[in-house]
Amino acid sequence: MNPRIVEVRKNILKKNDLAAAALRSRFQAAGVFVVSLVSSPGAGKTAFLERTLTAMRPRRRLAALVGDLATECDADRLRRSQVPVRQITTGTVCHLDAEMVARALEGWPLDALDWLFIENVGNLVCPASYDLGEQSRAVLLSVTEGEDKPLKYPTIFNTADVAIVTKIDLADAVGFDREALLRNIEHVRPGLALLEVSARSGKGFDRWVEWLDERSAALVSRV
Amino acid sequence: MNPRIVEVRKNILKKNDLAAAALRSRFQAAGVFVVSLVSSPGAGKTAFLERTLTAMRPRRRLAALVGDLATECDADRLRRSQVPVRQITTGTVCHLDAEMVARALEGWPLDALDWLFIENVGNLVCPASYDLGEQSRAVLLSVTEGEDKPLKYPTIFNTADVAIVTKIDLADAVGFDREALLRNIEHVRPGLALLEVSARSGKGFDRWVEWLDERSAALVSRV
Repeated sequence: MNPRIVEVRKNILKKNDLAAAALRSRFQAAGVFVVSLVSSPGAGKTAFLERTLTAMRPRRRLAALVGDLATECDADRLRRSQVPVRQITTGTVCHLDAEMVARALEGWPLDALDWLFIENVGNLVCPASYDLGEQSRAVLLSVTEGEDKPLKYPTIFNTADVAIVTKIDLADAVGFDREALLRNIEHVRPGLALLEVSARSGKGFDRWVEWLDERSAALVSRV
Repeated sequence: MNPRIVEVRKNILKKNDLAAAALRSRFQAAGVFVVSLVSSPGAGKTAFLERTLTAMRPRRRLAALVGDLATECDADRLRRSQVPVRQITTGTVCHLDAEMVARALEGWPLDALDWLFIENVGNLVCPASYDLGEQSRAVLLSVTEGEDKPLKYPTIFNTADVAIVTKIDLADAVGFDREALLRNIEHVRPGLALLEVSARSGKGFDRWVEWLDERSAALVSRV
């Protein structure tokens, strides 16, 4: 790559890292556990998040930020879960960055929250490079996308704390090969936690909420 | 966005446009019709391309370039169609650019080709900004991705000449809403050609090859 681009890119990332570190401190001070979701377009992030919010809402104080190039579709869908939601529209930018998150949070009382979910723009590449100050990052991939995705997009798997296989209700219809996917994830990221869910049937969401609780408890005990 | 980034980005794009224009002249001089494919990761570009190459091979001289961050998986798959294939691995770069294409073509006798297919990295955002010197760009989206994708990723639809709905054999299993998709495409890109295919069953490929023939004939008659 052009050395000038590399230089500018490094500076952008350094600036983002500083903004993300500031966010992370704010989240910790306010006692908010922040989880980001990344995936291809159409892997089912919004359906997954809607089901997650509905499952967690009775017991926790939740909020969500959702990123897209255009439209308020996702925020409108997520508001059905009766959780406060803000949409970030990025225009032509292919990922969220820490400053966009900071701007979207303006005026929101973080102290009143236990959990914040951030749904990134649908993209398996660029979001990998941008820390959003989150404590956990989940990478979603649907059974319809093919088992080779971890090999082809290794960076995003390397920055995630858990891989979530979505649309598991379609596994048979598409001939999903679980063993191949496990092997490919293990190849790029040995030991990465893996969950399987269906936002349609609700399968796997109890385990996912449990996983979140464990992660947040482990983090609190470390602080 | 940071004004310095905007400036560098503009210069990169200008440089890419020059490289793409040079490629386009070479393609025209050699009489090669070049088609690029863009989509989300997992929309089925490689299966689609494999079926396309197999369908066209008996009558034409074909070649393909395939882009991925990592692995030679796609090139290996496509070589089964007995067409010459070269893999471009981009590392962490989220799109192909015209210089990568030019480098990948080094030593290939373009005069010996009628058609060249270029499969981009799986990404519905960034490839939209990079002209590869192609004569036609096809945007693929699978029935499993949701009908809202054109609204959320309008730019890529605006740079394409045809939208191809893949995995149409799964339409019933996922409750695909054809009317909603048509409405959404029409909203962002009125009049965009639309084809529906299944790489599994072969449905729709006759029409696709016909469409390619019509496009290439129209272009030749214009030159």
